[in-house]
Amino acid sequence: MPTLVLIRHGQSAWNLENRFTGWWDVDLTEQGVGEAWAAGEAMKAAGLDFDICFTSFQSRAIKTLNLALEAMGRLWLPVEKDWRLNERHYGGLTGLNKAETAARHGDEQVKLWRRSFDVPPPLPEEGSPWDLAKDERYKGVPIPQTESLKDTIARVLPYWESRIAPELTAGRRVVISAHGNSLRALVKHLSGISEKDIASLEIPTGQPIVYELDEQLNATDRYYLSERS
Amino acid sequence: MPTLVLIRHGQSAWNLENRFTGWWDVDLTEQGVGEAWAAGEAMKAAGLDFDICFTSFQSRAIKTLNLALEAMGRLWLPVEKDWRLNERHYGGLTGLNKAETAARHGDEQVKLWRRSFDVPPPLPEEGSPWDLAKDERYKGVPIPQTESLKDTIARVLPYWESRIAPELTAGRRVVISAHGNSLRALVKHLSGISEKDIASLEIPTGQPIVYELDEQLNATDRYYLSERS
Repeated sequence: MPTLVLIRHGQSAWNLENRFTGWWDVDLTEQGVGEAWAAGEAMKAAGLDFDICFTSFQSRAIKTLNLALEAMGRLWLPVEKDWRLNERHYGGLTGLNKAETAARHGDEQVKLWRRSFDVPPPLPEEGSPWDLAKDERYKGVPIPQTESLKDTIARVLPYWESRIAPELTAGRRVVISAHGNSLRALVKHLSGISEKDIASLEIPTGQPIVYELDEQLNATDRYYLSERS
Repeated sequence: MPTLVLIRHGQSAWNLENRFTGWWDVDLTEQGVGEAWAAGEAMKAAGLDFDICFTSFQSRAIKTLNLALEAMGRLWLPVEKDWRLNERHYGGLTGLNKAETAARHGDEQVKLWRRSFDVPPPLPEEGSPWDLAKDERYKGVPIPQTESLKDTIARVLPYWESRIAPELTAGRRVVISAHGNSLRALVKHLSGISEKDIASLEIPTGQPIVYELDEQLNATDRYYLSERS
């Protein structure tokens, strides 16, 4: 049976500061580093192993993967990085504190931006300090200005179909280190969760999610590794 | 002009203990971690940048690369790992202290093993604790029993020709994080160093070596980054 494990990156500096992060490249906190290492140790203890790893272009997901692989003695595994596994782009909310944003725009509006399926946050302001147009890593990448969860899913799933699913179908064991919303995209697809419910599904940081799949990659089970060890 | 930088991994636990390491997977020391980070900072300060990275299957080289890339803000670069960039396999000397080995076999014999071009160390003993046959990472890899420098060159150069040189020729900027002897293989090839001289060329840990190459990948200059910054 195909093996698939999803991990959301460990706590980042802006998780801690309660700021909208999106595509901004924020580092892990010390706690986040510990979460990543513990995830690797837990996977090793559970006898999980992999043939290929996928992650985003963002340091917090890449470092989480590197730390987990090191804890597993698996630094030598192939790793493919792709922008399509990046976090949802938060547009004009990037960098803002979530509580301050709620005070300014109202709880209802912020909840709509955070938890609706197809409402994107406002566009970034002109001259925003969070502009990524000059970031070398996104040369040739169609950087979004802002994204709803629906928009995020629309670029995650083609990558799943073209790069990840074929590896699983070929019998290779896969781990994906990514972000709250790029993982929601995968969980929605694999577990058949509704548009209404997916945005409120919380994915905790640094907790490996194990999928049991049949040969057609239909999910037969999904659980947090911590629940079964 | 093509950009090529070579880095030997930072100090490892067995560099410090003066033991023959070869293919055994030894971690970086704290000093080695610092060397790797400093290498990344120095490359960034010098304005060096890369499009693709190559490293071995060995943790000390992979970690050196990961740390240097993090210091450069370049964790997102593609990294290709291959056993053909591994350290020379030291056969039956693996794990032995260099001074003790000299006391047992004589200085001349150890010098011959370490610094001759085509004399391989003795084969590993039966039941050696340093046997890699069951190491998952080498599944499908023709693990050598022992290697002379000549043997090492014979597996490094085909990888250079097939995977690395084409990237440089296509205009991509390349960094290679590897080992004393796999880097000697490349330096011998690029700088046209004789069989007699190459084995005594010392490559210090964690010091980026910059190659200036012409379009045909002939070396026009080679220097330690630390000499020019």
